[in-house]
Amino acid sequence: MEITEIDGVLCNGIKEGKLGLGLVKFSGNIAGVFTENKIKAAPVIVCMDNIRKGYAKGLIVNSGNANAFTGEQGLKDAKEMCKIAGELLGCRDDEIAVASTGVIGRKLDIEWIRKKAFEVYNGLGNSRKHAERFANAIRTTDRFIKKAYSNSAKISAIAKGAGMISPKLATMLCFAFTSAKFDSGELYEILKNAVKPLNRLTVDGDTSTNDTVLLIATGKEKIDRSIFEEELERVFYSIAKQIAKDGEGATKVFEVIVRGAESVKSAELVAKTIANSLLVKTAVFGCDPNWGRIIAAVGYSGAEVDDKITVAFENDEKTVLLVDRGKITGKENEAKEVMRGDFRIIVDLHRGEYEDYAIGCDLSYEYVRINAEYTT
Amino acid sequence: MEITEIDGVLCNGIKEGKLGLGLVKFSGNIAGVFTENKIKAAPVIVCMDNIRKGYAKGLIVNSGNANAFTGEQGLKDAKEMCKIAGELLGCRDDEIAVASTGVIGRKLDIEWIRKKAFEVYNGLGNSRKHAERFANAIRTTDRFIKKAYSNSAKISAIAKGAGMISPKLATMLCFAFTSAKFDSGELYEILKNAVKPLNRLTVDGDTSTNDTVLLIATGKEKIDRSIFEEELERVFYSIAKQIAKDGEGATKVFEVIVRGAESVKSAELVAKTIANSLLVKTAVFGCDPNWGRIIAAVGYSGAEVDDKITVAFENDEKTVLLVDRGKITGKENEAKEVMRGDFRIIVDLHRGEYEDYAIGCDLSYEYVRINAEYTT
Repeated sequence: MEITEIDGVLCNGIKEGKLGLGLVKFSGNIAGVFTENKIKAAPVIVCMDNIRKGYAKGLIVNSGNANAFTGEQGLKDAKEMCKIAGELLGCRDDEIAVASTGVIGRKLDIEWIRKKAFEVYNGLGNSRKHAERFANAIRTTDRFIKKAYSNSAKISAIAKGAGMISPKLATMLCFAFTSAKFDSGELYEILKNAVKPLNRLTVDGDTSTNDTVLLIATGKEKIDRSIFEEELERVFYSIAKQIAKDGEGATKVFEVIVRGAESVKSAELVAKTIANSLLVKTAVFGCDPNWGRIIAAVGYSGAEVDDKITVAFENDEKTVLLVDRGKITGKENEAKEVMRGDFRIIVDLHRGEYEDYAIGCDLSYEYVRINAEYTT
Repeated sequence: MEITEIDGVLCNGIKEGKLGLGLVKFSGNIAGVFTENKIKAAPVIVCMDNIRKGYAKGLIVNSGNANAFTGEQGLKDAKEMCKIAGELLGCRDDEIAVASTGVIGRKLDIEWIRKKAFEVYNGLGNSRKHAERFANAIRTTDRFIKKAYSNSAKISAIAKGAGMISPKLATMLCFAFTSAKFDSGELYEILKNAVKPLNRLTVDGDTSTNDTVLLIATGKEKIDRSIFEEELERVFYSIAKQIAKDGEGATKVFEVIVRGAESVKSAELVAKTIANSLLVKTAVFGCDPNWGRIIAAVGYSGAEVDDKITVAFENDEKTVLLVDRGKITGKENEAKEVMRGDFRIIVDLHRGEYEDYAIGCDLSYEYVRINAEYTT
């Protein structure tokens, strides 16, 4: 299901070289979560402000320029983007959601945006082609478009982002549309809960200045809240996996599942620490079942742990136990096989009943190549 | 000045393939700081216990096997190492300091250690050659021996460690000897303060299970405490830079100096966040003056910051201002030149008067190659 199949959503987009512009027309309640980086890009500040009232009538997104670290001029430009979209869509400036992604520290070419917005507006529509054009317009270094949907909950989401490890801090933008009916307070609570998979992916060393996740509900139909929340989380989980898959230079995605923790917080801490460890990431790349690195990461995660840990590697075909409550099994060769594709690292701390997970990707030569190149 | 030039210190060491054994004979007060990893290696646990009384008469160190994650047997083996050294040096088992470095999760070959300890003991001496043999015995993946000294404070230190980013979690071991006289309480306070440069280096993603820093004072002469403390910090700073220089695959060392922070904690947080950022590390490798990545790291460090930041790159010849209180200077090409060798990243937050620093090294293809290989 494309975003244009959500009742009441029209969109379009254009891409010219490294610059892109996308526009979405709708009318509905809106909720958003944004980067926790203290240095927020101008569009993030303006968008947070505009959606505070809980509804919006349009979304404008540009790619190629993040409009971040651009001071007063940046704020003026982000507001101007809203004005341009508002005039075209026939609504107030502050009824527009706005997002940007691209290079940091460069002034926006607002005249290019004005010109292209007009063209994009004239081509608004609700076909699959239109959804594709919008998705393509917001890409930067993304090798493919990320999208996911739920038929039962009438959700369709589109995203961009090249992994939690990313060149030029490739921003995660994710826009989820639904025809479900929720008031804006509910919508925010639902989003805050369901967004978890995206946080399990992006909270690592390098948090972008522009990360934006929006949930827009056109309110055409009644859907059970708990089903909706579950389905939305599933949609975001799919998006998170797709972003990890597109991580710069990534050759595979791995998931870390931590069980038996004393608290959810501990489980989260351990899972993220393992997924972010350079030594684990490189070992995953090289199919090296070096579980010592995992044990060490568990130890320095900050969570309460002891050495009675269980570590297993798992794919859809089999589970290989490497460490069983502190006892070494010697099954490295079997584990190596599991590491050839996407797989899961299962860690049981045997200290409690809490569980959490993190999604990561490996670290390859290609990552270094991409990120060592002169890009500013 | 070699460690053997410290009055009352005799040592020797042997290296056979990947295994090594070093022994030091002395009699003096001792203080130690150890890894904060919750999963501590057996020798760390035994050493912490043995030095609690504040004095020791010998040090035994093996390389090639970390004796970590080895359970009850590991503790027994670490204690056996102390017994072996104690018998040779004519003192009690619990008067021996012990350390190990190498592969995690393998049982120690205690018979090899017993045999070699006897040989090493028979060759104890105080020449430069003896110091070198000890230093060589404790190396693992180190490409060179790390040592530093202070003539004025009569300190000589020897260390091993291949960077904060390291294969098989290359442990940092650092042993500083002095002929100065301090009681064990003072010695611990001095060490805790002066060890700062080593913490500025090692507290990153991958903290070893075995990190051990010992300060041993043979008490032959009176040295002013404040001078001693300053000199010891200088010695550790030199060791820290040498370890960074030997970081796996590192082509250059960079230092991050953060000024104008609201607190020391904030300054430390920002400095370490920048030094640990994968995007900064790869940019340093590629001589890419991508200051946007530094700004973003400042923003997600967790410290209180705003966008009126100053960023400069500096070497011994010149300082290139890239961002001046939030204004972009456009001097990327000049900055690129500075990045060709070791350099400093200067960040001024303009929010207070506190300052701190971190020491890092770049991230290269070689790092990925070394760490992706099958090593367990």
